[in-house]
Order: sequence, then structure tokens, then C-alpha cells
Amino acid sequence: MEVELLVKNATIATASDVILDQQIAVKDGKIFLLGKDLSNIVNAKSTIDAFGAYVTPGGVDSHVHLHQDNAPAGDNFETGTRSAIAGGTTTILAFASQKKTDESIIPVVEEYHRRASGNAYCDYGFHLILSKPNATILEKELPTLVKDGGISSAKLYMTYARLKLSDYEVLDIMNATRKLGMTTMIHAENGDMIEFISEHLEKQRITGPYSHALSRPGIVEDEATYRAISLSELMDIPLLIVHMSQKTAASHVRNAQTRLLPIHAETCPHYLYLTSTRLKDPGDSGFAGAMCVCSPALRDDPMDLEAMWAGLNNGTFTTVASDHAPDKYDHPQGKKAGLIDGKGHFRKIPNGLPGLETRMPLLFKGVLDGRISIQKFVELNCSNPAKLYGMSDRKGTIAPGMDADLVIWYPVEGDKKMGSFALTNEMLHHDIDYTPFEGTEFANWPRYTILRGKIVWDRDGVGLAGVKGDGQYLKRGSSTLSKPRDIWVNDWRPS
Amino acid sequence: MEVELLVKNATIATASDVILDQQIAVKDGKIFLLGKDLSNIVNAKSTIDAFGAYVTPGGVDSHVHLHQDNAPAGDNFETGTRSAIAGGTTTILAFASQKKTDESIIPVVEEYHRRASGNAYCDYGFHLILSKPNATILEKELPTLVKDGGISSAKLYMTYARLKLSDYEVLDIMNATRKLGMTTMIHAENGDMIEFISEHLEKQRITGPYSHALSRPGIVEDEATYRAISLSELMDIPLLIVHMSQKTAASHVRNAQTRLLPIHAETCPHYLYLTSTRLKDPGDSGFAGAMCVCSPALRDDPMDLEAMWAGLNNGTFTTVASDHAPDKYDHPQGKKAGLIDGKGHFRKIPNGLPGLETRMPLLFKGVLDGRISIQKFVELNCSNPAKLYGMSDRKGTIAPGMDADLVIWYPVEGDKKMGSFALTNEMLHHDIDYTPFEGTEFANWPRYTILRGKIVWDRDGVGLAGVKGDGQYLKRGSSTLSKPRDIWVNDWRPS
Amino acid sequence: MEVELLVKNATIATASDVILDQQIAVKDGKIFLLGKDLSNIVNAKSTIDAFGAYVTPGGVDSHVHLHQDNAPAGDNFETGTRSAIAGGTTTILAFASQKKTDESIIPVVEEYHRRASGNAYCDYGFHLILSKPNATILEKELPTLVKDGGISSAKLYMTYARLKLSDYEVLDIMNATRKLGMTTMIHAENGDMIEFISEHLEKQRITGPYSHALSRPGIVEDEATYRAISLSELMDIPLLIVHMSQKTAASHVRNAQTRLLPIHAETCPHYLYLTSTRLKDPGDSGFAGAMCVCSPALRDDPMDLEAMWAGLNNGTFTTVASDHAPDKYDHPQGKKAGLIDGKGHFRKIPNGLPGLETRMPLLFKGVLDGRISIQKFVELNCSNPAKLYGMSDRKGTIAPGMDADLVIWYPVEGDKKMGSFALTNEMLHHDIDYTPFEGTEFANWPRYTILRGKIVWDRDGVGLAGVKGDGQYLKRGSSTLSKPRDIWVNDWRPS
Amino acid sequence: MEVELLVKNATIATASDVILDQQIAVKDGKIFLLGKDLSNIVNAKSTIDAFGAYVTPGGVDSHVHLHQDNAPAGDNFETGTRSAIAGGTTTILAFASQKKTDESIIPVVEEYHRRASGNAYCDYGFHLILSKPNATILEKELPTLVKDGGISSAKLYMTYARLKLSDYEVLDIMNATRKLGMTTMIHAENGDMIEFISEHLEKQRITGPYSHALSRPGIVEDEATYRAISLSELMDIPLLIVHMSQKTAASHVRNAQTRLLPIHAETCPHYLYLTSTRLKDPGDSGFAGAMCVCSPALRDDPMDLEAMWAGLNNGTFTTVASDHAPDKYDHPQGKKAGLIDGKGHFRKIPNGLPGLETRMPLLFKGVLDGRISIQKFVELNCSNPAKLYGMSDRKGTIAPGMDADLVIWYPVEGDKKMGSFALTNEMLHHDIDYTPFEGTEFANWPRYTILRGKIVWDRDGVGLAGVKGDGQYLKRGSSTLSKPRDIWVNDWRPS
Ligand SMILES: [Zn+2]
Ligand SMILES: [Zn+2]
Ligand SMILES: [Zn+2]
Ligand SMILES: [Zn+2]
Ligand SMILES: [Zn+2]
Ligand SMILES: [Zn+2]
Ligand SMILES: [Zn+2]
Ligand SMILES: [Zn+2]
Repeated sequence: MEVELLVKNATIATASDVILDQQIAVKDGKIFLLGKDLSNIVNAKSTIDAFGAYVTPGGVDSHVHLHQDNAPAGDNFETGTRSAIAGGTTTILAFASQKKTDESIIPVVEEYHRRASGNAYCDYGFHLILSKPNATILEKELPTLVKDGGISSAKLYMTYARLKLSDYEVLDIMNATRKLGMTTMIHAENGDMIEFISEHLEKQRITGPYSHALSRPGIVEDEATYRAISLSELMDIPLLIVHMSQKTAASHVRNAQTRLLPIHAETCPHYLYLTSTRLKDPGDSGFAGAMCVCSPALRDDPMDLEAMWAGLNNGTFTTVASDHAPDKYDHPQGKKAGLIDGKGHFRKIPNGLPGLETRMPLLFKGVLDGRISIQKFVELNCSNPAKLYGMSDRKGTIAPGMDADLVIWYPVEGDKKMGSFALTNEMLHHDIDYTPFEGTEFANWPRYTILRGKIVWDRDGVGLAGVKGDGQYLKRGSSTLSKPRDIWVNDWRPS
Repeated sequence: MEVELLVKNATIATASDVILDQQIAVKDGKIFLLGKDLSNIVNAKSTIDAFGAYVTPGGVDSHVHLHQDNAPAGDNFETGTRSAIAGGTTTILAFASQKKTDESIIPVVEEYHRRASGNAYCDYGFHLILSKPNATILEKELPTLVKDGGISSAKLYMTYARLKLSDYEVLDIMNATRKLGMTTMIHAENGDMIEFISEHLEKQRITGPYSHALSRPGIVEDEATYRAISLSELMDIPLLIVHMSQKTAASHVRNAQTRLLPIHAETCPHYLYLTSTRLKDPGDSGFAGAMCVCSPALRDDPMDLEAMWAGLNNGTFTTVASDHAPDKYDHPQGKKAGLIDGKGHFRKIPNGLPGLETRMPLLFKGVLDGRISIQKFVELNCSNPAKLYGMSDRKGTIAPGMDADLVIWYPVEGDKKMGSFALTNEMLHHDIDYTPFEGTEFANWPRYTILRGKIVWDRDGVGLAGVKGDGQYLKRGSSTLSKPRDIWVNDWRPS
Repeated sequence: MEVELLVKNATIATASDVILDQQIAVKDGKIFLLGKDLSNIVNAKSTIDAFGAYVTPGGVDSHVHLHQDNAPAGDNFETGTRSAIAGGTTTILAFASQKKTDESIIPVVEEYHRRASGNAYCDYGFHLILSKPNATILEKELPTLVKDGGISSAKLYMTYARLKLSDYEVLDIMNATRKLGMTTMIHAENGDMIEFISEHLEKQRITGPYSHALSRPGIVEDEATYRAISLSELMDIPLLIVHMSQKTAASHVRNAQTRLLPIHAETCPHYLYLTSTRLKDPGDSGFAGAMCVCSPALRDDPMDLEAMWAGLNNGTFTTVASDHAPDKYDHPQGKKAGLIDGKGHFRKIPNGLPGLETRMPLLFKGVLDGRISIQKFVELNCSNPAKLYGMSDRKGTIAPGMDADLVIWYPVEGDKKMGSFALTNEMLHHDIDYTPFEGTEFANWPRYTILRGKIVWDRDGVGLAGVKGDGQYLKRGSSTLSKPRDIWVNDWRPS
Repeated sequence: MEVELLVKNATIATASDVILDQQIAVKDGKIFLLGKDLSNIVNAKSTIDAFGAYVTPGGVDSHVHLHQDNAPAGDNFETGTRSAIAGGTTTILAFASQKKTDESIIPVVEEYHRRASGNAYCDYGFHLILSKPNATILEKELPTLVKDGGISSAKLYMTYARLKLSDYEVLDIMNATRKLGMTTMIHAENGDMIEFISEHLEKQRITGPYSHALSRPGIVEDEATYRAISLSELMDIPLLIVHMSQKTAASHVRNAQTRLLPIHAETCPHYLYLTSTRLKDPGDSGFAGAMCVCSPALRDDPMDLEAMWAGLNNGTFTTVASDHAPDKYDHPQGKKAGLIDGKGHFRKIPNGLPGLETRMPLLFKGVLDGRISIQKFVELNCSNPAKLYGMSDRKGTIAPGMDADLVIWYPVEGDKKMGSFALTNEMLHHDIDYTPFEGTEFANWPRYTILRGKIVWDRDGVGLAGVKGDGQYLKRGSSTLSKPRDIWVNDWRPS
């Protein structure tokens, strides 16, 4: 039988198992057969020998900001997804972001479709960002977007003036997303605390990049996380808390999970590897730290980083995402927007880091360093995001019938092992002029990225082998990880 | 030497000690001498034999609402303080409450002075209620009120539309009260949650008195308590959380205390004795439950009550107060305001219970039932409120030089023991037409209440022996229980 | 290509994934191919249509007592493994138990090999029970048994006079098992507490079956669990705590896991479904409760059962095992050994329940009841025991090259759905005269059990299709779940 | 009226109150009068002006080892109590220690009476140490010793071969002490763990003084504390855990207190001030660290010390005691017993530190440093030990009728303030050749110590003013702090 691709000698890793010496036959973009020896069964147009190497599902990066209005110096769908595949990510979820003035979100979604369509190197879907709920949106538009549009998730913010929702508004939206089985995501930082500190720092003219970290101490995330969990419990709704970075906040999640509340959490590579000392970078007359301004802020205490690693291991975190939200550094609408007359103004520095291409390699580094198992790597980066966001029927694992999205890594040992290298931004494929991981040593990297059976990244060959438009829009269903439990705090019920 | 009063055979209880067989000589309204036998030393105008009975300091009720504009059917200073002394309370702290439209609080305080002056049976002071901070109030008026006015405490609200402060406003006020050494109190309930549930209950026409409890589930207090503690930690400020009622919320306080955060907590007798079944009282066609509408709501789960008793015992609670905030039941501006066309409307029922007169006896009942020690009784009801609110130089313990505010109880055993009785509202001295403790059995009650040496309550004699005007206004200083620690979450500091 | 068996229309469940509409080809006792449609590829001697049904890996029951000297009225390898396959279990781990007088354990293992060899219906391996360590055993025999004998696990006891080890002895054995990479299991109950209570109950002539529960209150497990975890932390060794039943004890495990200590835990179906009221069964003049005498004792409080279910869900438990340790009820050396002159003597009732055949169906019932996911079912009952006990290279998941051990369940819906039934002991295949689950309703049960490609249980056909001797001895390697971390409490190291 | 002593201008501190400007009249060894101005009332033989200074109750050191057989190079009653009064301690509780071979403890107690009688400078009582219970001791002798002998407390050990009790024996003793209302104390360290580590260190010839700390890591105390609390809960008995030093162990106590278990805890000055680096003292060829060998060992981590201070503050600790258990350093039966052929042998170094004289000053230092309040100082060092050990009718507070045991400190400010000094061992009054607090700076120290009205320490005058024999034996009653609650883990009861 004719197949497009045969991967031989694979050590297949799923979220639970490591299976040695496997062969994978790919046909019509799908995984067609798994077996120990398919050589007498299939006839492959091309063959890859994965001897000694892990073969994992393609990465699913469920938190990516591309071509948003608030980031004119960021990546667009072309440059962002290009960097995705070069880093082993075959599916991304980007945001379609409502402005508070938008009375309807249908045009918002249409606009983001226009921005993405034909431009993507990898498959993609959209989360909504809801910044101002109204009855039309909640009762008419959301059902349509879920059923017809395949958009089954929304992100809410507890901070940023232009996005911040009151607790009342969060409850109102949760009431709607609950009924629709949407996955609800929340950015948990106490906006009032941040505003208060920021104003006081400004009054005291303490405004360099590090003031960003001062203005967002861990307690800001700690409090908001506890509140978000409480709102979720009150509304009996599963919730994902995005980009967690802080130890106490993570303990709230774990305590909620102990009680079986359907609370999920996400962390990001930068919260595993970087501390706030990066914001004190003396370079560029003290402004270089702006490159590491993101929210939540990088933490002061390495114990917070340890807590994130521990949370990966002990099950606190459901997913790892990049929160790729980059801005060029040396660009008037990029990070340099915060440099006025030679002085840093932390409140004017756009928030966010590039990280789409480095996410999978940085987590694989955690595997090599003995911090997490390879199964946990797959669970966090591939399977769980696919399950949580309603696409585990196609993405996130290696099994017959699934999309043939694969990452073939270099052998862990032996003479085909990849030579170690120190990352430079030039090696990356985004449209950003820096990476916070400049200089980080990598002992492995995706050797091949395969999207629905097509080799789109061939590191030792042409490099980028895919083209703009390879990526397709994904209609998604409901989470298979959790759903409302119909357990309420008392006899009240939402109408 | 001539003295006014000699108390003999006293078992004196302080917050730490029980001292048998004591004599107390009172002179010029102060405790003059303590000794085993003063009979050869002083010559007393009157003598009380306290044989077999505890003598405790006069009660300090630090949370009492009198003659506030929002409670036209409540108690005024005359009727409230009258009931205080009949229940063993010799000092109260009432509220001077700012309206959101008040740009200055000086007239507010003056008005409350007018309402109280000459009317009080017991000593009194004022807390501020701040509902709308502005620069003048925070920077000019508060310092004056503290220094000259002897008002060293303020209460903030996280709920009620007319009082609710945002987190930002709470921080702003804390910044001012911190500098002035004021004791900051907070009503911790999440107003948005309450509003959301209430609206949904209304839409579903579930509006009887019990809906009040439905609209204020424990999680409302749990969340707000955690948030209040976080705000306190961020601002490095001691905080008292008023009228706590819920187990998880209390655990937040205890955890904070474990970490040495200066968090104090208050609970009330109704949270020790009553559950929300009282709101389902079928009487008066189902409206009688309105009598027990208060905020936080009485709890559904008796385990919450157990947790409050445990919290008294293990040190979680600093004080017990009545939160006396009564409204007549059968009055168009009282509880019956919530009865419209024969149907209950929980949102229109004024919140609050009478409790000033019953507080001390109900807690003493806890002593007799083996729930708390007599020292803990004194600590919670007398000493700690005096310390926390800056009047421990005069109030809250029995020692030479202190105001001679005493409660002489009935003997615990022997033939002078008080006969047990079931409480009826007629026995009480407030101007309210019911008590939530109707029918409660009491095996002890203040036999004498003594205010600055004067017998103002003589239960076996004339009963009420004091007169309107006996009570004096108290200028208070700073808390001697805790103060800012100058420990901050990072290097930010308020300006 | 010729294969022995083709399973069609399978909904394959692994510990992470549910894959619809799969075909499984089995060849030489192994899983040969997985694909969506193998009909044009393989030619199968027999075919099973699993339409609408889950296909899971064969069950691995890692805690089974068979033919032990202390249970003359229990099951032997023939009757035990017979019941295993009828309940979907294809692999068991039984015990080779050292007596305190045994100076060598080699003959012990040989004896158990004799007892099992040729008698098993399913595959089997041995754990050691070590009741008296000596240098020869620890330094010479254990290494041999691990390397040559394929015995990679040992169970230790903290109670039972004939088995109990001191903390010192536990440390001594841990030091040896740590070096050998053996999985260490511990029965955590405080033997002294049990002994003390038992003696006092006897003195008071309170000796019926329920006294067994009185003598083993939850605190007995709570304390010993905390101690066992401490010993493990001191020795830097992974540990499995067997047959956990109690809420606080489970919280110790979870707290340890939060800290990334390599602590594993097992629970059993009876701790999920039964409470100690069973010990008060009035039948047989009050002795019938003896049927439910096991250790740890069934718990009084249903909240403990809820905590076990929660622990399955939130990851506290690594495995579920039957702890099949049965004794006939009506047998002089069985439960009736505790009935003397018509009076129950709890200390003479042999401890243990039958449960090998019911384990998988009872947990599948948890899936149907929405208590756990099907993936969690597979993880707990199949994958994790295979991983923890070093046989995940052959057992515990469905993938090419693995042993073709499968359970095909009935369709969850549709007309092929199994009719619900109430269990009676006659339906079971053990050699025990009762089941504690008599009368329990089941809506599903293994329809086929397949052992290395052979149908050994065909519920709608011949029933028992396997024969004595089908089962093979399993040489096992080290756990792939965890290993020593080389993190120590201070600078001390064992020699 | 004639009195012996008048203290004027006292700032009296009790466990709850600080009362300014007090006068204390002492008559017949008792506090006779308290008043603001006694000058017209009493005529005093001697007067002390305490202007600006705290006057506290005399210290009660409830954990002191004197003249025990196992410490031939330690203090006896004369030298120990001499140092007590020079440090502000007016009451001590020493130990009468049973050997495992003692079948009766009556002679043991008699022997200790002989050792103490006529030799003491301060009042004293005895705890029992029970190392081997038997029926006669538990049922006959203990009741006699409690009722007639005034010995109402016993200490049990979980470590040391010559003293260690099994859990069973602990329960057996608790059963007896519970019935008698005795205060039960426990030394909580896991002896098996210590033995195991010690043997391994010895095998590796790692035997210097610091090996003592290696052999007793914090987990040794952590585990034993949890076990001791469990034993206490099982037996429904109040328990004091002596000399706590470790953070996790302290958290077990606090958690137990949260649940209202009657668990008390004691810590010691050395666990507040010293870390295990002291054991690495390079002096004397590396043996000088032996001076700081005590059990529990000084902790490695300063966070443990912080946790002890926090525990003082938040109420975890009931008492502070010295655990004065000294041995001369340069003495063949002292610390040097551990120096053999020039090499340290940690297991041969006698355990214990001198600390009786420095306890009160070191804790007062905590007051001056803002670590604890003066009331907490009194509570921990005076009132609570008096209450817990049944002598609060005479000791532990300042009130009419109490023994006139007072410490008059130096003024905190002003020109009478004590000059700061660095402690040297020569300043102390014990018979030990070193102090672990050599060089510690003190800004205050007892200026006068008064024992039952007699000035026994006059630092600026004769120094030691008391004489051998001033101290009297104290018959004690039951604890007034807690008692059995009659709450049991299930329906079992001890016989
Ligand atoms: Zn965000
Ligand atoms: Zn983001
Ligand atoms: Zn309030
Ligand atoms: Zn109030
Ligand atoms: Zn067992
Ligand atoms: Zn077992
Ligand atoms: Zn000790
Ligand atoms: Zn000691």
C-alpha cells in the first residue's frame, strides 16, 4: 500500500507512554498505521529514520498573540507561524480581541480571519478576548461563534484599563460560556493594586524598566488567582488561569484541584527560566531590561521558578504556552515607546515577550535536565492543550486517524546527536529583533517538524520547508478535560 | 481612707489571670487599691459582696451602629447605651458614617457628637466609616480627627452600593490610616458576587428572606477576606476584619497570623449561635425570617459556627462585638420595608440584628458551657477591644488607676447562684421589638454593672440605676496590639 | 498478512487518550498493528467487533495474596488467577512472604514459584515480603533476586506482630532496596496503637467484628503514613503506600507529592465503596460482619470514601489494587476462626477480603458514574502498576509490540449494551464463599479478556476460555515512574 | 501598716497587661497591695524605686536538669539555683529520673529530694522522668506522688536507648497520667532514625561534633512530633512537647491547635539564637563545637530560628524553658568524654547546654529587639509555666496574694538605663566552664530578683543576696491550661 511517509525506528512518546522501535505510516495527512515493522506492508514515498530519537506529537501552543492592534511592532500570522514550525509547533491558538467600544464581536472575528487567512505556516484557531459583554454578544453571537465558527474559548482580563472586567462582568460572561461549554481563560492580576503602585512609583519618578516588576509584585497574581478561582467556584465553571508565575498563586490552584474544582493552569517558558534581574539589565543606558517586560512580571525569587517546575511535575499545570506577545525592541511603537527623552517609562513599554519558536525546545531542555519526563512534556505541550481547547480528535497525540503532526527530535545519544549550541536571535524565524533566551544552550531542537504529513521544517536540510498557507483554520469543539460539575455553593442558580 | 465602693470576695478575671478572694477599692471613679484584705485600710461608702462570683472588666463593644441615617427604625444613643449597661457593657464604639456625597467628614463627626452628647448611659467613642476618600479628607481631616478628635479608627466596606470602595480606594485610605496609626477595619464581602446572585434570584422571583442567605454564600466572605488580607499585606498595615462568620475566611486569617501578618478578626454572638434556618422561619406568612437578616448572612452549616468557636479558642479572633445594627421588625422603615404587597423582597429588608445587651451574657454562656475560658472571655470582650482601639490606658482590665468599669456576675455555684431563665424581648432595654435570642436559656447575667465606680445596673435592685448622660465621650489613641511592621512585598513604597 | 486476531471498531483507551474507530491486529501474542482500517492488510483467524465499546489494556493487579501460609482458607494460584481473568485482569503480582525465622529468602521464593508454576490462568510476578532483614538477605540475596529472579519489589509492614518492622529495620531495608532500584511498598498502620486499643477492648470484653474497626481508627493509618513518608524522605527512596483508606493519610501523600517527594499510593475498591457499618452486620448472630474484616479497617465516615475518590481524580493515587487477601467465611481456619463458643473474637478473625475479580468492574463502574475518566481508569488499573513495578515494556498499554493483553467491554450504549445485574458470589470464580460486593449493581463487565492474544474470558460464550497454565511468570525490571532523587535532608549519606 | 517591701514607680507587666506607675506592697512573702499610691497606707522596711523599669513576675523555668546521675559534670541544686536567681528565675522544675532498672520510683523521688533539700536558692519542684512503666508505678505510685507528693508532671522520651519508650509504653503511661490530671511532657525525636544515621556516620568515620547535627536532622523532630500529637489525640490527653527547634514540627503543633487539640509546646533560647555552625567551631582542634552539642541539635537553617520566634508570637509555644542540662567542657566526664585519642566521637559527647541564668535576659532581649511584646515575655517565661504545671495559685503573675516573686529590670530609657555589655562566662553563677552565649550583647538584665519578698539578687549591690536554702519545695496541682476534652477518635475507651 502506497503511503506518503514512513517514519522508522521511532521512540514514540505520548502523554502516558514511551514506545520503542515503532514505525509510523502517514497517508492523506493522517497517521495511517502504527507497527513494529511496516516494511512489508507499506510502500513509502519518503522515509525518515528516527533511530535513537523521540518522536512526539506536533506542539500545540494555545496562547499566542499575532497581528493584534495593540502590538503594531509585533508578529503577524505569517512571521509568527513561520517561527512556530521552526520550533516544533504545528498548531497555535491566537486571539480575536474585542475593544470595549465594539458592540458586536462578529466583525472582530471576521477581521482576524482576514489577517490569518492564507498567511499561516501552521494550523490555527482563535480564542476570543471579551472586554465588554453585552446581551447580544453573550446570548446571540457567542452561540453562533461556538457552533458555526468553531471558536470554543474566551479569555478574560482582571487588569489593563482597556480590557479589565469587573468581578460582576466576569460572572456575567462565565454564565454565558458555561452554557456553551466554552473554555474560559483568565488573566489573573489585580489591576487596582498595579495601578496604585504604578502611580506611586511615578510620583516618586522611579520609572525604569524594573519598575514594571515593582508594580506587579507576586501578591498581585496571588490575590487575583484566588479571586478567579472563587468566581469559578461560584459559577460552577471550569477555568484556565493563563501564564502563571508565582508560588502562592500556584498553591491556590493546587488546593482547588485537591477539592476537585475544575481549575486548570498554564505557565510559560519565561516563568521557568528567567527572573526579574533581567529587567535591571544595564545595557542601553539601563533601558535594555525593557526587552523582558511582560505581565505577569518575571519574578524576583528563584523559588518561584522552582515552584513552576514543581507545578509541571506534580500536575498543577495543565498546559505550557508561549504567551508569544512580542514587540520589536528598537522600534518607536515597540519597546522603545517606553523610552522618552532618554528616560525609561515603564508604563509606556509594551508588555510581552517573543517565545513561540523557543517553547518546545526549552521544555525539551527540561526533559534532558531531568526536570520533567518526556510524557509530561507531551502532555503539557501537545495533548492537554488539544484536549482543553476541543481539538483532541485531531491534534495532540500519535495514533491512527490523527493529523500526522509530528516532531522528530535528534537522537538523545550516539553520533547522530545534535551538537550543542547557544541560541542567537538570528537563528529564529519571527520578525522580532531579540529573544530573551539569547545565549541559552540547547542540546536538542526539532530536527523535523511535520504538519499533516508534510515536512515543514528540516533543520539539517533546507530549514524552512513549509510555505505560507500550509496552515489551516481549525474549528474546535468543547474541552474533553473538564466540564461544569453541577455542584453549587448553595441553592442559588444563575438564570 | 475614704473610698466610694469596696468589692469584696471577688474572683477577679483578667485576660490572663484568675485571682481568688480579692478586694477592690474604688475612688474617684478609678480602681484605687487591690488587695486580699482592705477592711483595715479603707472605709467604703458602699460595699458589694461578690462571694463565689467572677468580677470582670466592663464590656467594651467595639462595633455598634446607633442613630445612623440608614436605620431610622433602629436604636439611638439613649436606647442603645441603655441596653449596653444592662448587659454588662460600659464602653461602646459607634460609627460616624460618611455619605459618598460628603466632601468633608468634619461635619459628619460633629453631627454624630450632637446625636450622642448627653444621651449616653455608657462611655462611647466613634469609628469613621469612609465611603469616598478625597485628598482633603485623607490629608487634612483625618490627621485632625486623630490628633484632636481622638478618633483613631475607620471602617471600610467591600460591599453595599452606597458604601463600597474599590480595591484602589481601599489602598488609598490605608495609605492614610497607616501613617496616622489608625486602626483600619473592613467589612469583607464581595459586592459584585452578591449583586450578581441577587439579580438572578430576583429574575427568578425567589425573593423571600432566605434569599438574603442565598445571595451571600460563604464564598462571598471567603474571597473578600483573602483579598482584604492581601491589600493589608501590600500596604503593610494592621487590619481588623469585622463580623466574621465563615470557616474558610477564618482560616485565611489564621494563616496570615501564622506568618505574623498583623491581621485581626472580630466575630459576633449571632455567628456563634444562629444558622440560616432562622431565615426560613414560617411565621408571619414566611416573612418572620426577616428578623434574622444581617450581613454577613447567618450561615447554613453548623460547622461554620463550630469554626467560630474554635477561632475564639485558638486565637484567630481578637475581639467579639455585637454589630448591633437593629431595625424594628414591625415598622414601615424597619424590617417590614421588605414586605411589599404581602411578598418578601429580601433586597429591601434592612440588614442587621440587635445584640448590644446580649453580647456579654451570650459569651459568658460560652464560659459556662466550657467553650472558652473566663480569661478568654475577658480578652475578647474587654481587653482586646480596648487595646486594639487605643483605650487600654483606661479600659479593658482591672488594675489600679484604670477606670472602675466592672461587671459583677452571679456566683457560679451555691445558693446565690442566679436562677436560669429563658430570654424574652421584654427583658431587654433597647428600643427594638424583638431579639433573635428570644427563648435562649441563660444561667448567668450581669448582676451589677459599674461604670467609673457608679453602679449603673443592679439586676436584683432597681435594675437600671444609671441615667442618660452618665456616659462620656472617649478620646482614643493608637492600637497597642499591632502596628505596621515595615515589611514590604518588594522595594516599592507608597508616597 | 496472517494474524491471529483482529479487533475492529475499537474505542481504544490508554492512560492519556481515547482513540475512536480503531483496529488492532494481534500476532504472536503481541499487538502487531494499529490502524483505522486493517481489512486490506491483514487476514485474521478470528475477529471481534468492539463497536461502541471501550477496549482497554488488560488489568494489572499489583497487590494479591495467593496461597500464603497465613491464609489456609484463602485462594491458591489456580483459583485466584481464574477469577482474575474473569474480571479483566491479565497480570497479577503476588507475594513471597518471609517468616521472621527465615534466615534466607531464596527458598521462600522457590517455594512460591512451586506454588504458582503451571497453575496460573494469567501472568504473574512476585513481590517479596521482608519481615526480618539480615546482612545476607540484604547484601547477597536481594541483588540476585532482582537481577536473576526478576523480583524488583518488596513490601514492608509497620504492624502485625509476625511481620512488623521497627523504623530502624525499615531504614535498613530501604538502604538495600534503594541501591537495587527496587520498588518499596509499605503497609502503614501504627502497630502499637492497634495493640494498645485491642488489649483494652479485650479487657472490656468488647470483641465482636466491629471491634476490629474500633482497634484501627483512622489515626492509626494517618500517623503511620506520615512516618513512612518521613522514613522515605530520610532515605531518599521512592515508596508506595499500599491500600490507603483514610483522608488525612491521603493528604500526607498529596503534600509530599506537592514537594515532589517520590511518594506513591494505592487504594482498593473496598475503600471506595464500603464503610464500617458492614462490620456491624447483625447476620449470623452478629458475626457476619467478620466477612468485612480487613486492614486497614473499613472506615466509619463516608467522607473518607469521598476522599479516596478525590484522590483517584486529583492524582494522589498511583494505582488501584484489590489487596485480594481472602479467607472463606464458613471455615474453621477462615473467618470462623474468630467465632469461639458463639462469641466473636475480633483478634482471631483473619484479615482480608476477596476482590481480584471485582476490581476492574468496580472501577469501571466509577467511570460510568462520572467519578473518573476512562483514561484515569486505565492509568490506575493498568498502566501505572505496570510502570511502577517494572513491566511497562510489555504490560499496561495498547501499542505495537506490547503483549496483546486486552479487555473488551460491552458497548456503553445501544442494543449491544450489557443488561444490568446484581452481583452474586456464584457468578465469581474464586474459591471463596462470599463477596463483600454481593448485590452490587453492575452496568458493565469485561465481555472478553485477552491474554497475549488468546481469548481467556468470553462472557457471552463459554465464559472461562483460558486454562490453568496459560499464565507465565514475569521477570520485572525497575520502576519507570520514579527513582531516588539524590536529594538528602543534610550531608549524611548511608554507607 | 507595716510591710517588708514597697516597690514604687513600677511598670507592671502581666501576661495581658502593662500597667504604669504602680506601687507594690509585700508582706509575709506575699503581694499584699497594689495601688497607684500606697505611701499613706503602708510603712515599708525597704523601698525600691523602679522608675522607668518593667517589673515582671519572677521567672519560672520549667525544664531544668540538676544533679542527675547521667551528668556527673553538670550542675547540682546549689549551683544551678544560684544561677537561676542571678538571671531572674525564682522557680525551677527539675527532674527525678527513673532508670529502666528501677521497679519503683518512690525511692527515686526521695533521692532527688535529698539532693535538693536545703541546697536551693530558689523554689523548686520535680517532674518525673518515666523510662519503664509497670503496673505498680502507674497504678499505685503515681497517684501517691500526685496527691501527697505534689508531683503533677512527667516527661517521656522517644529517643536515647536508656530512656526511650515504645509508642505502646507512651500510651500506657498516658492512660495513667490522664486519669491523674498530670501534665505529660515528651521529648520528640525519632530514636531509630538517629541510631541508623549515627551508625552509618560511624562506619564512615565521620565522628566530629558536627556529626551530632548530621545524626539528628530536622525530620527526626518533625516525624516524632507528628507521632506524639497522634498519640495524644488517640488518648485524649494534653501534651507538652519539650524543646522544639524545627519549623515543620512547629507547624504540626499549630495545626493541632487549630483543631483545638490540647497540644502545648516549649522552645528554648538556644533554638532562638544559635545555629549548627556552632558545632563546626574549629577551636580546640575542631572539638570546641562539643560545647554546643544538645538535643534536638541546633538547626542548620536560620529559617528554623525565625520559625521559633514566629511561634512565640503567634501562640504556637506555650512556654520557654532553658533545658539547662549542662556538662563542663574540660572535664573527663563532661564534654571531653567525647574526645578520645585526640579525635571527636559525637556519640560519646554528653548532650546539653547551660542556660538557666541566661534564659530570662535572652528573652527580654527579644522584647527590646521588637520580636515579642513584654506581655508575651511574661506569658512564656512566667505565667504559662506556672499554669501548665499547676502552681498558678502562687506563681507566675503579680496580684495580691501571690508569692512576691518579682524581677525588677533596668529602666528601658533614661540615665538609669543599664550599660550594654558582652556576656562572659565569669559573670555567670553556674558551675560550668563555658556558656554558649559568650560574647552576646545584653542591654538589660535583672537588676533585682525578689523571692517571696526577699531580695536575692541585687546586681548593683552585693550581687548574690540570697543563700542556699532560701528555696522551698513546691507541691503542685493540675494544669489550669488544658485538660482532657473527652473527645475520642471513635467509640473505644481505655480501661
Ligand atoms: Zn494575559
Ligand atoms: Zn497573553
Ligand atoms: Zn459591616
Ligand atoms: Zn456593622
Ligand atoms: Zn497490607
Ligand atoms: Zn495486602
Ligand atoms: Zn529532652
Ligand atoms: Zn531536657
